Amino acid sequence: MGELLYSGKAKQMWTTEDPDLLRVVYLDQATMLNGKRKDHFVGKGTAANDISTLVFEYLIRKGIPTHFVKRLSPTEELVKKCEMIRLEFVTRNIVAGHFASRFGLKEGTPLDQPVEETFYKSDELDDPFANESDAIAIQACTANEYQQCWELARRCNVLLTALFAKAGMKLVDFKLEFGKLADGTLVLADEFSPDNCRLWDRETNAHLDKDVFRKNLGDITTTYDEVYERLQKVVMEENDD
Amino acid sequence: MGELLYSGKAKQMWTTEDPDLLRVVYLDQATMLNGKRKDHFVGKGTAANDISTLVFEYLIRKGIPTHFVKRLSPTEELVKKCEMIRLEFVTRNIVAGHFASRFGLKEGTPLDQPVEETFYKSDELDDPFANESDAIAIQACTANEYQQCWELARRCNVLLTALFAKAGMKLVDFKLEFGKLADGTLVLADEFSPDNCRLWDRETNAHLDKDVFRKNLGDITTTYDEVYERLQKVVMEENDD
Ligand SMILES: Nc1ncnc2c1ncn2[C@@H]1O[C@H](COP(=O)(O)OP(=O)(O)O)[C@@H](O)[C@H]1O
Ligand SMILES: Nc1ncnc2c1ncn2[C@@H]1O[C@H](COP(=O)(O)OP(=O)(O)O)[C@@H](O)[C@H]1O
Ligand SMILES: [Mg+2]
Ligand SMILES: [Mg+2]
Repeated sequence: MGELLYSGKAKQMWTTEDPDLLRVVYLDQATMLNGKRKDHFVGKGTAANDISTLVFEYLIRKGIPTHFVKRLSPTEELVKKCEMIRLEFVTRNIVAGHFASRFGLKEGTPLDQPVEETFYKSDELDDPFANESDAIAIQACTANEYQQCWELARRCNVLLTALFAKAGMKLVDFKLEFGKLADGTLVLADEFSPDNCRLWDRETNAHLDKDVFRKNLGDITTTYDEVYERLQKVVMEENDD
Repeated sequence: MGELLYSGKAKQMWTTEDPDLLRVVYLDQATMLNGKRKDHFVGKGTAANDISTLVFEYLIRKGIPTHFVKRLSPTEELVKKCEMIRLEFVTRNIVAGHFASRFGLKEGTPLDQPVEETFYKSDELDDPFANESDAIAIQACTANEYQQCWELARRCNVLLTALFAKAGMKLVDFKLEFGKLADGTLVLADEFSPDNCRLWDRETNAHLDKDVFRKNLGDITTTYDEVYERLQKVVMEENDD
């Protein structure tokens, strides 16, 4: 079974026989306010794993280097172990959430250019913003790594905006994490699920993401399952081409 | 006398007969928490004006474009009217203040490279951080202006760190504001005084800035007068060379 390395807000990370590989277990829980509120949802782990697997496989097909190896079970996947960069790379295509309140802007306004914000990943410090010079000063990464991560994040934004559009969804904003493999290669790590992005229905602007939980708008598992079904249809059509 | 255009936390801006020029009046007051606390200090306006005049004249001699025209009286100066860029450009050479608490770092640690942080100037929104992509999204400036301001700020940091070092002070951190003249030229505007920077005595690390007021450490006017005297000595020696 391996050893439990880390139990986070959404996932557990377990060692495997191979020291370079980790087993990720997606948990049936959702948290908000940096873990201060936590709830249990049957099937949520499976739905998040389904979506993240689909998205990582799609990005790999499009040439993005990632930590992803394979799906192991409905709630588990195998990934390459990384030394994580302790930053959250947030891309915003449409005004929402903290960005709207921080600047007094109207939710839903499309941005001419994506907004790119980096935060230091620290529950104790409440994920403070950290620009490039901050990140270097606190030794979260080098200037070169910071630039490389943003280049990858920009490519992901183009690819994922197109993928979600085909599935009838607006990719409003999202958070990515990056890590370094044993040989130093920088790769996209962690997960991509509606836990870490905002997705709005193209027609109705209905929330298809964790805001359903944050705002008590309905059942999170049903919502995530719908996102997965929509994405699966797009990917199957693409593979048919 | 002109018309009162704006009454701010530290200064008043008055129109003059020349529509391109403004008269700045330095007030005998200090504020903190974005104006939520405010106190009166006899002579503080004069001391801040003295220091700011000396610093702007020094920067002009070193080739920095500024709004400064001349000192008019102990509490007044004449400046070129600008369309202000609503951003605060903060440079940090040594860990202190919000930067220390935000990242849980020890005050007084020198930074290998200066940290450069930009904030949106808005009392209502509590001066939220705003990186380049934020600044563009909220139309505070263009990408080009953002880069130009930081290039000027970097030159000011080199020049001012040297000036204050000669006067026995460490320039810990400081805030600059920039504006555009009628012809579009970008210039350093606003003021440079211990209201907008942290200065520590080289030997004792004693606060020689607004922290004296924030932390109730003594008389702010006496402190500012000492900063002015130290700077004046350096500038007089330089002019003798
Ligand atoms: N490939 C990887 N190697 C090592 N750590 C990883 C990898 N991918 C993600 N992680 C880290 O594992 C944790 C995943 O669990 P999660 O529940 O998301 O935690 P958190 O509450 O810290 O966000 C995160 O801290 C994430 O940075
Ligand atoms: N050359 C200039 N032209 C127009 N406005 C200026 C100029 N220099 C500074 N300002 C603005 O005038 C105000 C100065 O007053 P201050 O008391 O510092 O105000 P605040 O409380 O807004 O910081 C600031 O809003 C500053 O941005
Ligand atoms: Mg996480
Ligand atoms: Mg001011």
